[in-house]
Amino acid sequence: MKKNTLLLLVAMNITMLCSYADEGRPIVSFCQETESIVESPIQQTLQETRKKLFELTHHDAVVMKNFDNFAEVLQVAFQKEKSMTVQEIEKICLGIDFAAEKHRFQTRKNKERTPYISHPIGVAYHLMEVGEVREASVVIGALLHDTVEDTQTTFEEIENKFGKQISGLVREVTDDKSLARDVRKRFQVISASHKSKGAAQIKLADKLFNLKDLYNNPPPDWTQARIDRYYEWAQSVVDRLPNANDKLHDAIKEIIDQYWEKQISAYTQTN
Amino acid sequence: MKKNTLLLLVAMNITMLCSYADEGRPIVSFCQETESIVESPIQQTLQETRKKLFELTHHDAVVMKNFDNFAEVLQVAFQKEKSMTVQEIEKICLGIDFAAEKHRFQTRKNKERTPYISHPIGVAYHLMEVGEVREASVVIGALLHDTVEDTQTTFEEIENKFGKQISGLVREVTDDKSLARDVRKRFQVISASHKSKGAAQIKLADKLFNLKDLYNNPPPDWTQARIDRYYEWAQSVVDRLPNANDKLHDAIKEIIDQYWEKQISAYTQTN
Repeated sequence: MKKNTLLLLVAMNITMLCSYADEGRPIVSFCQETESIVESPIQQTLQETRKKLFELTHHDAVVMKNFDNFAEVLQVAFQKEKSMTVQEIEKICLGIDFAAEKHRFQTRKNKERTPYISHPIGVAYHLMEVGEVREASVVIGALLHDTVEDTQTTFEEIENKFGKQISGLVREVTDDKSLARDVRKRFQVISASHKSKGAAQIKLADKLFNLKDLYNNPPPDWTQARIDRYYEWAQSVVDRLPNANDKLHDAIKEIIDQYWEKQISAYTQTN
Repeated sequence: MKKNTLLLLVAMNITMLCSYADEGRPIVSFCQETESIVESPIQQTLQETRKKLFELTHHDAVVMKNFDNFAEVLQVAFQKEKSMTVQEIEKICLGIDFAAEKHRFQTRKNKERTPYISHPIGVAYHLMEVGEVREASVVIGALLHDTVEDTQTTFEEIENKFGKQISGLVREVTDDKSLARDVRKRFQVISASHKSKGAAQIKLADKLFNLKDLYNNPPPDWTQARIDRYYEWAQSVVDRLPNANDKLHDAIKEIIDQYWEKQISAYTQTN
């Protein structure tokens, strides 16, 4: 092979990798995942959803990371555990597409204003990864859990697209925005003890995500006292939820402990 | 016996009963307790403490009721269970005298502005009645728990009068008033996990009393949202305390549940 031909081939390869990298996918996993594409019938669905997400969020790195983590758990559930069917994973991908479209103009409150879809995907991820939940309806409920509360989505729309069970779950975890903020927060505590198991699992994963997020990346305009209050309030909600998932409960206890313990050292250092 | 003599005797008896009733003691228990006075060597000490309290609080009915409940538990512990000695009960009475004197110009925040001493006595009562604690040092720690925080009392004064163990307990449950309110409240949550068993028991009984008090008799200027936040905060403190007393923990869980459940019915009625 001539030197020029070799250089051309190397250049082409780099171009291929770069165009792949442009979609935010870590280059290093390219080869491993090529294998999966061949092996797994869910790979194409996941890739398509990933591509839509990539475009909708303008290549947001956090969103893509959350999606990749979630996709990995889905693949494990499908391929290794055989605990989920192709149809279920396709419906979950529809859930991601739907939620991403609905939340497309919204962001989280953190400094970087991460696209909002990072949250429902993260909640669904915690539900599966930490809580080991494998019920597709609950996972989809997690993906859609903020659509009615925070966008123009209606329960009817969800029922038509995803069925009665999922719209019921979303209804259970949707706050009534016509109420004042204080009353809404109170109502979450009050109503926690009356949730179904699936709704309780979604709420646990939701709180776990938010508590971690506040720990690692709090909104810049939140005072320490406000974060304290969020932690205290979340604990009250969680303590009153039915015991729907020990692993999620334990993980929440751990992050809450970690939050307060971190403050001891901060206090010890400054005093 | 002549009719007039009989009437005179009846009148004298009524006068006696009334003068007794003036000290706030329920007339009905007069005869039963005459018996106890003869039988029990702690009765006189309790009566003297009761009298001081009666004078210091200007005959406050709530204080006297709290004292009578507490005295009853002490008598059961002494006479029936034999779980406390004369010396211990005498020291507990000294604790009541000391705290009542220190808090004499303070009131609770409720509508009636109940004398403050109603609180430490109530906390000591919950500790014994609900928590079944019989360690005199912990009971006295409960009686003195707010003296340093809310009055001019020093730890040295407590150590000189009640010993090192009790002053240590009081130190563990005393907030640093030089800190801002938010920081103090945060510090209670933070430091909860590092409390000794005795201090944790006092804190549990303290929170139980306050939660019940807020439930039954909230300060008139507290909004519902503020009471909510107190409940949420108290739960965070309690959840992080070492598991020092299951019965107190259970009673706290019960009142917290009761608080939120009551609001469901309030919400259901008005909506």
